[in-house]
Amino acid sequence: MADFDFALGENAQMIRDTTARFAAARIAPLATRIDAQDWFPREELWPAMGDLGLHGITVAPEWGGLGLGYLEHVLACEEVSRASASIGLSYGAHSNLCVNQIARWGNEDQKARYLPRLISGEHVGALAMSEAGAGSDVVSMKLRARESERGYVLDGTKFWITNAAYADTLVVYAKTGEAITAFLIEKTMPGFSIGQKIDKMGMRGSPTAELVFDGCEVPRENVLGPLHGGVKVLMSGLDYERAVLAGIQLGIMQACLDVVLPYVRTRQQFGQPIGAFQLMQAKVADMYVALNSARAYVYAVARACDAGRTTRHDAAGAILLASENAVRVALDAVQALGGAGYTKDWPVERFLRDAKLLDIGAGTNEIRRMLIGRELIGVGR
Amino acid sequence: MADFDFALGENAQMIRDTTARFAAARIAPLATRIDAQDWFPREELWPAMGDLGLHGITVAPEWGGLGLGYLEHVLACEEVSRASASIGLSYGAHSNLCVNQIARWGNEDQKARYLPRLISGEHVGALAMSEAGAGSDVVSMKLRARESERGYVLDGTKFWITNAAYADTLVVYAKTGEAITAFLIEKTMPGFSIGQKIDKMGMRGSPTAELVFDGCEVPRENVLGPLHGGVKVLMSGLDYERAVLAGIQLGIMQACLDVVLPYVRTRQQFGQPIGAFQLMQAKVADMYVALNSARAYVYAVARACDAGRTTRHDAAGAILLASENAVRVALDAVQALGGAGYTKDWPVERFLRDAKLLDIGAGTNEIRRMLIGRELIGVGR
Amino acid sequence: MADFDFALGENAQMIRDTTARFAAARIAPLATRIDAQDWFPREELWPAMGDLGLHGITVAPEWGGLGLGYLEHVLACEEVSRASASIGLSYGAHSNLCVNQIARWGNEDQKARYLPRLISGEHVGALAMSEAGAGSDVVSMKLRARESERGYVLDGTKFWITNAAYADTLVVYAKTGEAITAFLIEKTMPGFSIGQKIDKMGMRGSPTAELVFDGCEVPRENVLGPLHGGVKVLMSGLDYERAVLAGIQLGIMQACLDVVLPYVRTRQQFGQPIGAFQLMQAKVADMYVALNSARAYVYAVARACDAGRTTRHDAAGAILLASENAVRVALDAVQALGGAGYTKDWPVERFLRDAKLLDIGAGTNEIRRMLIGRELIGVGR
Amino acid sequence: MADFDFALGENAQMIRDTTARFAAARIAPLATRIDAQDWFPREELWPAMGDLGLHGITVAPEWGGLGLGYLEHVLACEEVSRASASIGLSYGAHSNLCVNQIARWGNEDQKARYLPRLISGEHVGALAMSEAGAGSDVVSMKLRARESERGYVLDGTKFWITNAAYADTLVVYAKTGEAITAFLIEKTMPGFSIGQKIDKMGMRGSPTAELVFDGCEVPRENVLGPLHGGVKVLMSGLDYERAVLAGIQLGIMQACLDVVLPYVRTRQQFGQPIGAFQLMQAKVADMYVALNSARAYVYAVARACDAGRTTRHDAAGAILLASENAVRVALDAVQALGGAGYTKDWPVERFLRDAKLLDIGAGTNEIRRMLIGRELIGVGR
Repeated sequence: MADFDFALGENAQMIRDTTARFAAARIAPLATRIDAQDWFPREELWPAMGDLGLHGITVAPEWGGLGLGYLEHVLACEEVSRASASIGLSYGAHSNLCVNQIARWGNEDQKARYLPRLISGEHVGALAMSEAGAGSDVVSMKLRARESERGYVLDGTKFWITNAAYADTLVVYAKTGEAITAFLIEKTMPGFSIGQKIDKMGMRGSPTAELVFDGCEVPRENVLGPLHGGVKVLMSGLDYERAVLAGIQLGIMQACLDVVLPYVRTRQQFGQPIGAFQLMQAKVADMYVALNSARAYVYAVARACDAGRTTRHDAAGAILLASENAVRVALDAVQALGGAGYTKDWPVERFLRDAKLLDIGAGTNEIRRMLIGRELIGVGR
Repeated sequence: MADFDFALGENAQMIRDTTARFAAARIAPLATRIDAQDWFPREELWPAMGDLGLHGITVAPEWGGLGLGYLEHVLACEEVSRASASIGLSYGAHSNLCVNQIARWGNEDQKARYLPRLISGEHVGALAMSEAGAGSDVVSMKLRARESERGYVLDGTKFWITNAAYADTLVVYAKTGEAITAFLIEKTMPGFSIGQKIDKMGMRGSPTAELVFDGCEVPRENVLGPLHGGVKVLMSGLDYERAVLAGIQLGIMQACLDVVLPYVRTRQQFGQPIGAFQLMQAKVADMYVALNSARAYVYAVARACDAGRTTRHDAAGAILLASENAVRVALDAVQALGGAGYTKDWPVERFLRDAKLLDIGAGTNEIRRMLIGRELIGVGR
Repeated sequence: MADFDFALGENAQMIRDTTARFAAARIAPLATRIDAQDWFPREELWPAMGDLGLHGITVAPEWGGLGLGYLEHVLACEEVSRASASIGLSYGAHSNLCVNQIARWGNEDQKARYLPRLISGEHVGALAMSEAGAGSDVVSMKLRARESERGYVLDGTKFWITNAAYADTLVVYAKTGEAITAFLIEKTMPGFSIGQKIDKMGMRGSPTAELVFDGCEVPRENVLGPLHGGVKVLMSGLDYERAVLAGIQLGIMQACLDVVLPYVRTRQQFGQPIGAFQLMQAKVADMYVALNSARAYVYAVARACDAGRTTRHDAAGAILLASENAVRVALDAVQALGGAGYTKDWPVERFLRDAKLLDIGAGTNEIRRMLIGRELIGVGR
Repeated sequence: MADFDFALGENAQMIRDTTARFAAARIAPLATRIDAQDWFPREELWPAMGDLGLHGITVAPEWGGLGLGYLEHVLACEEVSRASASIGLSYGAHSNLCVNQIARWGNEDQKARYLPRLISGEHVGALAMSEAGAGSDVVSMKLRARESERGYVLDGTKFWITNAAYADTLVVYAKTGEAITAFLIEKTMPGFSIGQKIDKMGMRGSPTAELVFDGCEVPRENVLGPLHGGVKVLMSGLDYERAVLAGIQLGIMQACLDVVLPYVRTRQQFGQPIGAFQLMQAKVADMYVALNSARAYVYAVARACDAGRTTRHDAAGAILLASENAVRVALDAVQALGGAGYTKDWPVERFLRDAKLLDIGAGTNEIRRMLIGRELIGVGR
């Protein structure tokens, strides 16, 4: 098939092509092992992705970034995820949740200290918001930051933190009194450690774990953004996060078609390629329309982000659509391959396990629906 | 809600705004009567829409058109349909299926003879492809055009022809031997008449009927496009037709939200506006995401049409998605209004009846799925 | 196809057969007119259905009933609705909501006064619970019954009352102080009148209207069940109401297959009957499975009702499933007939309009979902 | 919640209770390990299940069976699968596909030789129909049985055979000339061996593998049923197979509710148990209705099997519905548990992986839809 032309523009097309080539050559060959062994190939990938500029797509060149936009970031995330959604997830957490937030809220000193090595891929970044008892419920956050002589002392835990075990630099939200403040944490800070690792059904290889803060002293200069302004820091990044992570689901859907199309052209049943059967044609059609309609919506939101004109409900809508479409498409991909699709000889069962994460992670689809409804209706907040 | 910014550009935004104002002022007040009385308000609307340039959006200015593109045409169709999908359907049949095809395939003489009055709204246009025994099956077309001294003599019937009873000028496909040829028919030609009128569940007011050709003599100069080249004429217009008609479904979905949002803000149950309930918020969210994802996809296809770069499967995919989304959204709109939605005191039951047409008309969704699947798979054609 | 054998037993099979024969001979020929003219053929049908015993299926023989159970009642409702869902709705309101509630809660005197003529079909019955401002929200009921010398004086209105304009006897719930009491109202009582008639999208012919009580004096002996015990009277009948009304949706689904199966066997496209295409076979399969799985569940609930062992959540679940399945099946039926299905030449568009009612009426599907969830979870009540 | 009463009768209820107790005590504690280690606990379970009579539910007592029906068999399969769907699958393959087919088609000698040890659980049974190149396509079967002096010599392979590696006795279909014949194979027969083991996404622990026949000599007395009558043997068992295996999906759905209900009662978000939220109540409602409607249909089919009156399309419809419902319910279960559901700390992700198998295995849902459609329409076969 000729790819549909979304009129992305030259930069975006270049990022897509570059990332696609890299992902096919360097990530795809590792994807099965990443999943099977729950293996995060940091050395194999992070610096190389840094060399391509992928870790700082939305960051100004003075800090080592490419100075491009969220559309380009979505496309990079999509192409990485097409090869391995696990890597796409870790990449999104690193380059958007951590790097982009530091670029948006850090002062000169903070940017100088953290961005270059995160963007080069020498360092790995993470962001820590959720806690064991509070997934989507920010208000019940329990991690406390008490003021101390040199800054703040953090006590408590964070849960479900992508990249936790590997992260050198973490943006961490903690309670300062009744308010919330964002902190820049380094993995070497005393009192900081990695707790329980999470054994996930999918997105294996993207390391998820608990963070433990046990009297962890953080210097005052590591407050990110305004003191007590953490909610604003957090909220201001959500639309971008939603757009970029939605790219993961686009990549998974494309990966499904990458496998299914050749399969149905060659696999024979009843004396014909199964792609000659109407029910298979309809399945492929539904997969494709699910993908390209999600693309169109996610790209439109990303462009609007770049223009400073997205709405919160469309950003939430784009990831809601992309997440549910990807689950459907992955189920269809397993189905299209029949028995083969149900085995580990083919990657589609992995795509299904991977796809389910974003129905839940970074805000569940239930929360997204309520948010969108409330934004539009204007009541019940 | 702030409308999401699809970055349509100035012309498109202007067409949207102009059409929206006109539709709200002039079409919406007639919509209930149009439906209830199966009434086509030709005099009230066609010349006025012509004055705004809506009938020739994609036609060069020398023939009275605006010289704009399919994106603008989609938006006009969307805004007309938001007020009345019946009018949107007749408008699409007139301005795209008839006018645009004449502009694309007519010779100078034909364009001069037919376009100005069609574009001014003095005349109404139609296109006739389907027959009673052949909905989606072009090959079994039975309308015959035999060569005669002055041109061709047509015998047979066409069925399910939008605008039939009112059309002054019709693009009609007929068999010339084994091939198919397009003809320009005038309603006054001897041997041409209107047969059975179709009483539809929705899209009432958009007049649908049979065409009867009983020894209808058509002069040679009324062959549109190449003799025996009708299939090419037909096929070349389908992507544009799909994009423009998909606009109808966008308009219906917006109309649903136009009713539902104020309703759920004010209607009280259990001491609260029903918009305060999660299940209603989720319903509104699903409606909105269905609308804006369909918009994103349809607009992307329209832009690609304008750039000469759409694919057949994406054009079919866009109308497939839009048609099914609109049915779901209209069902949700009826449901959101509860008992009220089930009555003729509110327009949402009309939206549901109207929305179902494009699951069937202009190619069923089954045919669209097969087409998309076959394009992508490359077998089974 | 051979009908699937649900092992209904002899009585149930006899009721099904008798009703089916009657419905095919006497109701089906009227169905189009009932819909087109919003016509309730009381004289043509009510006494004849009484002669067959259909109005008192669940009532003891001493009051003229058949002394059978809810399973038989469901089947009668299904077969009536297969011919005309409008008649099925009026029949359910009459025979279950009114007759069965009087049989369950009336004293000897009340049963003697009201049941014989309701069961013979001489009289038409109705039940009135909902009000304009309170669809699913019983607590906000506004119709007041003040105690008077001879009984009670009712002031207020009821809305969305099936059979209103024709009912001789109505079970009406009204506020007696903080509590609710059920009353037996006769249409001739001074101060009682019929208000606004409701013009519905479907179920046309089943007359729906407002009831107006303007100082309507009701004698004390017309209190049905315990004074202030109306909530108990109301709630105790809901499971039976849900089961019987679910039969309407079963009838609609069967009516869809009654039309679609012969159609797809004979309608030709591309040189074959359309039933030879996989996509049509799959559509028919989905329709059939939707019907027979709903049947199995509704019949199981009806049997449990007869054994005094249904659960509230399964009764609600059965009508929830049946209502949504019927809408899907009716949409599929329209789709299977293509253009024909969208016209009033075929009944499937009526089936779609009819099917949508029970997503809303007698408790919306949103309310049903909350009820089921809360029963199972045991919180949030 | 009180369980809904499906009026199963005494025997069925006893089988359900007995199996449920056994499964909770003996299978459930192994379920995580079965999945994690792809471990088939033959010694731990097969003889003990034999002691309870579960391996010969539908077999006459003279061969060691319980002499009960398919309804009882479905219930046993459901309760086993509620504890571990993998064991349920192996149990279904053993007790229905193998044991029941031998009981139905074996002669006295064959039944005496094979049934007692299969029913006691000393032996494990399997059935082998599908091949690598022919999943749902029986006609292209390639395993050949050539006549020899003492019987038949089999050459070729079978693929996707449940219980393969452990089976002592296998019912194997092979080509005898143009026809197909069923054979009873013992694992010790020379020339028979186990090939490639299949590493599946779910149903792990239920061993699936290839069978290799390399000049495998089978004595004449091991022909099962009529020579060249294999298609009849095969087809005659399919309805029973579909009913019994559908029980697996019922068990999975119940297992989902077993986890979800306590979870949503206790897990707190925003200061309330999440079961207090409408969206969670609706999700639970949908899960429950999916389960109990599938139960009602599957049980009705099983009863009809017992009465000798099922239809092919209803048996296919029941497993089609149960398989798709179970996938939806398992997706909902993962979603209801949020992040927890995505981890291996909870079993719901296993339920999802397990549930997907029967969309594909024992006939794909595409094949089932075509079969049902064709049975009903009567064309296109």
